[in-house]
Amino acid sequence: MAKEITSREEDYSKWYLDIVRKAGLADNSAVRGCMVIKPTGYAIWENMRDQLDKMFKETGHVNAYFPLFIPKSFLSKEADHVEGFAKECAVVTHHRLMNNPDGSGVVVDPSAKLEEELIVRPTSETIIWNTYKDWINSYRDLPLLINQWANVVRWEMRTRPFLRTAEFLWQEGHTAHATSQEAIEESQLIHEVYARFAEDYMAMPVIKGAKSANERFAGAVETYTIEALMQDGKALQAGTSHFLGQNFAKAFDVKYLNSANKEEYVWATSWGVSTRLVGGLIMTHSDDEGLVLPPKLAPTQVVIVPIPKPSPEIMEVAAKIKKELNAHGVSVKIDEDAKKRPGFKFAEYEMKGVPVRIGIGKRDLEKNQVEVARRDTKTKESHSLDGIATHVVELLDVIQSNLFNKAKQFRDDMTSEANDFKTFEELINDKGGFVSAHWDGTVESELKIKELTKATLRCIPNDAVEESGKDLISGAPSSKRVLFAKAY
Amino acid sequence: MAKEITSREEDYSKWYLDIVRKAGLADNSAVRGCMVIKPTGYAIWENMRDQLDKMFKETGHVNAYFPLFIPKSFLSKEADHVEGFAKECAVVTHHRLMNNPDGSGVVVDPSAKLEEELIVRPTSETIIWNTYKDWINSYRDLPLLINQWANVVRWEMRTRPFLRTAEFLWQEGHTAHATSQEAIEESQLIHEVYARFAEDYMAMPVIKGAKSANERFAGAVETYTIEALMQDGKALQAGTSHFLGQNFAKAFDVKYLNSANKEEYVWATSWGVSTRLVGGLIMTHSDDEGLVLPPKLAPTQVVIVPIPKPSPEIMEVAAKIKKELNAHGVSVKIDEDAKKRPGFKFAEYEMKGVPVRIGIGKRDLEKNQVEVARRDTKTKESHSLDGIATHVVELLDVIQSNLFNKAKQFRDDMTSEANDFKTFEELINDKGGFVSAHWDGTVESELKIKELTKATLRCIPNDAVEESGKDLISGAPSSKRVLFAKAY
Repeated sequence: MAKEITSREEDYSKWYLDIVRKAGLADNSAVRGCMVIKPTGYAIWENMRDQLDKMFKETGHVNAYFPLFIPKSFLSKEADHVEGFAKECAVVTHHRLMNNPDGSGVVVDPSAKLEEELIVRPTSETIIWNTYKDWINSYRDLPLLINQWANVVRWEMRTRPFLRTAEFLWQEGHTAHATSQEAIEESQLIHEVYARFAEDYMAMPVIKGAKSANERFAGAVETYTIEALMQDGKALQAGTSHFLGQNFAKAFDVKYLNSANKEEYVWATSWGVSTRLVGGLIMTHSDDEGLVLPPKLAPTQVVIVPIPKPSPEIMEVAAKIKKELNAHGVSVKIDEDAKKRPGFKFAEYEMKGVPVRIGIGKRDLEKNQVEVARRDTKTKESHSLDGIATHVVELLDVIQSNLFNKAKQFRDDMTSEANDFKTFEELINDKGGFVSAHWDGTVESELKIKELTKATLRCIPNDAVEESGKDLISGAPSSKRVLFAKAY
Repeated sequence: MAKEITSREEDYSKWYLDIVRKAGLADNSAVRGCMVIKPTGYAIWENMRDQLDKMFKETGHVNAYFPLFIPKSFLSKEADHVEGFAKECAVVTHHRLMNNPDGSGVVVDPSAKLEEELIVRPTSETIIWNTYKDWINSYRDLPLLINQWANVVRWEMRTRPFLRTAEFLWQEGHTAHATSQEAIEESQLIHEVYARFAEDYMAMPVIKGAKSANERFAGAVETYTIEALMQDGKALQAGTSHFLGQNFAKAFDVKYLNSANKEEYVWATSWGVSTRLVGGLIMTHSDDEGLVLPPKLAPTQVVIVPIPKPSPEIMEVAAKIKKELNAHGVSVKIDEDAKKRPGFKFAEYEMKGVPVRIGIGKRDLEKNQVEVARRDTKTKESHSLDGIATHVVELLDVIQSNLFNKAKQFRDDMTSEANDFKTFEELINDKGGFVSAHWDGTVESELKIKELTKATLRCIPNDAVEESGKDLISGAPSSKRVLFAKAY
């Protein structure tokens, strides 16, 4: 099985597609740019969703659901927003089909043309703020802390499973606040939640920072981002949180009476992560043998393989271990298939990224032991049956930490400093990764760098230290370094 | 608050809309026929979804996700299916907007017309079976037991929140099997799961049965349904499970190699329940004071109200009760608002259908007791603080059973027999509810009854007893009774 995977060195892009296909994560569909998320891929997304949903609820948010369609005129109400989103989208123009008079199937019924076209939501700020107008009257209605789990559509020309698809699944939070300060704090709180989720659950280290004006969300005053580094040295924007100021409140006329009985526009945030995170997860940890999953998000955490095949004695021990691990909240699969050989199964579970494999053979059992193999390091060792469940539970934690540390080491090794453009260009082209450099804060310098190197300004890190330097392009003075990289 | 609700007797339809609005379940949107599901309404749906998802997984199903869009030509591939679904639907014809040359916003870019129109899925059999073609080769790939949680769109002319909306949320199971028998058993298994969910969780009694050929799902060989009775005497189809035979396998050319190495078409089922269930839940239990929720699906099961307002002493007891109830898995809200009076709060929680309210006052505490009020019976009693958590946990079970029994009593009282058309017509028009009558099995009799009375054949009950009788219209012989009713 593993032989069928292209190595990362040979062709990173093909390696990624091989993993997606061979590990059963996603498939192409008959609709251009839309993927089918297969059961294993969807189970990973479900685990992400459940954990994020818990974190949102713990921080006071509730879920709701808004319409799939947005009236075309809504998109024009916020000037920047329409520039960013209203262009490549799915437009519904009719509401009926009819039998083709020539008998060849169905055609659009020309008499069923909509008065106003509907856009399949690319993001929901406009339809939601149009609704908030009815929900918000006084300061007592604030804050409004709402999240939505939904599908959205952006008509992308070049797509790649999970990373960029025309339709994708995501969550979008949309909150309303009485003060600017409170809205900024909300966007920062979610920024922290995203970073914690990425690092503690995905084992994917991220840089927290703000976007430059040029890279901001269309309609935002400030965009906070978490940026991760993939194994090919390209950055992945993994989650953004926006302080929207009063832009949408003004566009949709959403005012509230403050405690002094005076009318004011409401302050807003929005924030989202998507199935793109599944792509990030794959590209952070996987290797040339297949998918590698952090235990906290793995649909199956432990697989038990009878060696060479199931016997009553082996199955009894397997069932006992499974029961003990289940009691610790660990998900376990026992592979009872008597037709496939252990070697075939080992390769299959490596491909699928199951973090721990327990092999149970007759001779091992005679010594009161089993074989425990780690997917991350591809090492294995014998372990006594006594205390095996506790050992595996601890091992899952060790694997989770190891994956994070390994990815962080890689990220750190792939983060360089450049103090002149030539060095910068060489680093971007030859080494890749993040390049930390001074920037004068102008969109001109930023765009020039993009034009010359294809690297974009990923973020102005939250923890950037005060330091005087010069912009790589203009030579103008700068007080801190920002991060550039080529990106997905 | 409650005063603002129209009584059921005065105007049942307006009563329903009042409950939906006042209990904060859903709101109209700017898009015709699409609703906004508000946080409380969505929390009920989440509880339904989580429980159903658990039941599907326990019966061996996994989740996946298929595209929102269906190429127009796919809909024509199964002859009956296109008749049933391809008519009123949202049609995507373009993939881009552009700035209007006159500066008045955005317009559809005529150059971005799709080669083939895309339909927003009204149901996903076609796109899924087109995918299964690639996934199924041999008997070893079967059964394929997949479910999807998704939004779908059917362009309805007359809509009502939850019960009938253009866009709605649902789950749709799509399974593939090697034999007809296995597929029939699957559709019956899900039929049982739906009935169990309706009765054990929604406390909504249902009649299990098969649909007549005329009422079957477009493309099905057999449709199993659960039918509930609302308080106005109208039936609600609450969940259907279809045996699709080989219709979709033939339409999309999905064959498998059986164990004898011979090619055969695959056998299929599909099944779904939707946010319509939230409408059924409201209409089964609620009263003129507001929403009534069965404890197993209530987002907040217990509310604690300090009387007349919070004090350190009262809040300490409230926190202790909350902690104990939480330990039993009960969700509890303590209302700490010092500005609203208890009477106002009582009406508010009645409106929102919180099953149990605990009032804590100073004088009660001196007697080591609190006041426990039930939403279902609107009775209250004092209970000692000793063992209060255990008492409330038991009371929630009692309420759950009481709601089911009350609804079942109503349903049974509203189920009548008719042996001639005149009696039938009187029952349908004057009393409402289910009318059990003989039917000759022809679509002519069924349609005649619909034409004359607006009643439809709801189902041929699974437990119908063999009994000879005569069709109400034709007088032709019949061997068992079927159920008719006016329906949503």
